[in-house]
Amino acid sequence: MAITHSTASTDFEDRFAALLAMKRETSSDVDQAVAEIISAVRKDGDRALADYTRRFDHFDVGKAGGLAFTAQQIEDAFQRVDQKTLDALTLARDRIRSHHERQLPKNDRYTDALGVELGSRWTAVEAVGLYVPGGTASYPSSVLMNALPAAVAGVERIAMVVPTPDGKVNPLVLVAAKLAGVREIYRVGGAQAVAALAYGTETISPVAKIVGPGNAYVAAAKRRVFGTVGIDMIAGPSEVLVLADANNNPDWIAADLLAQAEHDEAAQSILVTNDEAFGDAVRAAVERQLQTLPRGEIARASWNDFGAIITVSDFDEALPLVDRIAAEHLELAFEGAESYVERVRNAGAIFIGSYTPEVIGDYVGGSNHVLPTARSARFSSGLGVLDYMKRTSLLKCGPEQLRALGPSAVALAEAEGLGAHARSVSIRLNPGDADG
Amino acid sequence: MAITHSTASTDFEDRFAALLAMKRETSSDVDQAVAEIISAVRKDGDRALADYTRRFDHFDVGKAGGLAFTAQQIEDAFQRVDQKTLDALTLARDRIRSHHERQLPKNDRYTDALGVELGSRWTAVEAVGLYVPGGTASYPSSVLMNALPAAVAGVERIAMVVPTPDGKVNPLVLVAAKLAGVREIYRVGGAQAVAALAYGTETISPVAKIVGPGNAYVAAAKRRVFGTVGIDMIAGPSEVLVLADANNNPDWIAADLLAQAEHDEAAQSILVTNDEAFGDAVRAAVERQLQTLPRGEIARASWNDFGAIITVSDFDEALPLVDRIAAEHLELAFEGAESYVERVRNAGAIFIGSYTPEVIGDYVGGSNHVLPTARSARFSSGLGVLDYMKRTSLLKCGPEQLRALGPSAVALAEAEGLGAHARSVSIRLNPGDADG
Repeated sequence: MAITHSTASTDFEDRFAALLAMKRETSSDVDQAVAEIISAVRKDGDRALADYTRRFDHFDVGKAGGLAFTAQQIEDAFQRVDQKTLDALTLARDRIRSHHERQLPKNDRYTDALGVELGSRWTAVEAVGLYVPGGTASYPSSVLMNALPAAVAGVERIAMVVPTPDGKVNPLVLVAAKLAGVREIYRVGGAQAVAALAYGTETISPVAKIVGPGNAYVAAAKRRVFGTVGIDMIAGPSEVLVLADANNNPDWIAADLLAQAEHDEAAQSILVTNDEAFGDAVRAAVERQLQTLPRGEIARASWNDFGAIITVSDFDEALPLVDRIAAEHLELAFEGAESYVERVRNAGAIFIGSYTPEVIGDYVGGSNHVLPTARSARFSSGLGVLDYMKRTSLLKCGPEQLRALGPSAVALAEAEGLGAHARSVSIRLNPGDADG
Repeated sequence: MAITHSTASTDFEDRFAALLAMKRETSSDVDQAVAEIISAVRKDGDRALADYTRRFDHFDVGKAGGLAFTAQQIEDAFQRVDQKTLDALTLARDRIRSHHERQLPKNDRYTDALGVELGSRWTAVEAVGLYVPGGTASYPSSVLMNALPAAVAGVERIAMVVPTPDGKVNPLVLVAAKLAGVREIYRVGGAQAVAALAYGTETISPVAKIVGPGNAYVAAAKRRVFGTVGIDMIAGPSEVLVLADANNNPDWIAADLLAQAEHDEAAQSILVTNDEAFGDAVRAAVERQLQTLPRGEIARASWNDFGAIITVSDFDEALPLVDRIAAEHLELAFEGAESYVERVRNAGAIFIGSYTPEVIGDYVGGSNHVLPTARSARFSSGLGVLDYMKRTSLLKCGPEQLRALGPSAVALAEAEGLGAHARSVSIRLNPGDADG
């Protein structure tokens, strides 16, 4: 059962620091294996992909007609999805797209008082690889969340990879990909899929950036190819921080805590309340609901090992704790939540009021569900359109502007001992400087 | 001497691919040493910093009055800087600040057709650590380029670290820091400084993000603390790509190529021209200028090992090469450069016209000189204000909006097999769902 803390207890700071320092990630040492896989894919291309797929996914790529899903195979997946789910996916797609369209940056070009022209020009990454896990963690919602910001950014080519253990694929994943505008899908996973996206094979052209969640092999492979290609953040276990007062139904709050806990035994759910009795009621509701939860064992492990209930005298007192926890998901379910939002500094996403369970944001809210975990909301943001774009600076001087700025550039170059830097400017100001 | 390539030669594609694949970075294996240093600093704090500083920088922190530079010591540095350099630094500071102020993102809050409130809220990172190398690579311009975007973003605390070998510090670095609004400066460097910034010691409070260039130890330490704190890109050797026609003075272009080459033996300077004779003239000018260059040996090594001159039939033919090289710095010195800018996809910064040598951007142009190297302009941007901020998503539903969106969220949660997710919504729609 989750531990209860109170800011009134004398050892609260120590206990809170220990809560923050909890290591929830299990790091398996897969780096050597991953290095070998990447090297084999670079050397043998498609043949290595087929070998690894036979070995790890017990599946013969040749028999399925090759690495790539055909347009017909993707179309056929629609027949295996019920209308209600298809409608829900379509609603999610439309809402996610609309929200992310607002994130498109504007180019900026201007001339300053000296006549110098400056600018910032945004362009989309040319090609993106999207990793989608197989098996039970194969979530169509994550396909939408990763692919749509890329499509909105203007990425022309999104190449998706998904392992198909024993040849099985979740049709919802193919449907979500098609809805999001992905036209290239390969039945390959693991470090071998990451290697293929980074370096290319006969069938899979290389991309410039790789995104999407995966297991320890996938994460290690992404770390290893970083530099050759860009990667997204490597996500840790999910977490929610709920601030709720006694004007909430304890069952609702318990359900929210468990929605996070059911993701993973390493997930973390924390309740902060200003009412000890309400905390007790939520705790009891959690125990009750755990008994009827399909993924109850996972949720119980998470709640027992990492769950916490913190009692504060008021939510003002909680504010510095909120910023130190820097939660991936923050629910504010109390009177005055709206003005509290302005005072929170560190959170991946904030869900305001009792009628905004975090789960709405997982699927159909419109904002992205790929969010910074493990306190990284202190320095990073959720996935968005800017992650699929890059900015080029522009600078343009004429002779007059160079005369105005040049002497200062020369002075600084000389102060830094960079003679060729100084010459590159002075030679344009004083003909005859070529020989120094 | 740099190799000349021509797109007209039959083996051009192979030779160009080899040019792209050149490994310019020397990776020294310092990871184990760095791991030990970090662990010692976490354990012994300031005492470990003093020990390493004595060992690596031959310098007794205690004798200087402690790790932190005093306000008086920083003020005194101004007396050691001549007025011309101070004026140039001040001009650079003002121009960099003005340009970066235009990068401040806008918060977005809106209500959609269903009445759902959505938003994106930007906040500054609380505290940033800025690494500044000691010795000859101690560049005041880099202090401005790293610190000013943080100040513009609203970062309240910028903690700078700089090693002072034998107790010596470049006064320009202290002056630049003060001009940029940095008020905390510590005389410590190497992996031990990175560890102190990430984990904190008695004297140095921990930060949320660490930026700035450094040697192999610093880079390895940044990689290792990543996750605990954010880090910036780990920069590789500098590079320039110049596209120039015969209407240029070969000496000007040669000076630009050498300004890049003098940085580092691993730097790379490439000229693309549509006129073979002009290429020859530039090559001759490079040789001539090398003879009188203070850092001639470094520049010669870079030019001989990594320099290249590529002859194309016209600049249209060069466009795909430009995007594949994805240069940190791209100079366009030919008729029609302005419209060419719109067609370039991958470049860290573009310098337009013969009167905009890249060096202007290094110092006083106003745009940032911390730019993506080693082809990473395909997927990343130069340093800017957004690197010191993070975005929090906001979502707010009332009962009516939850009724509209909830059933779709439940459908998707069920399709993904996440029962507690489904319950967290359905329990709010259908009282009595608490027990599933």
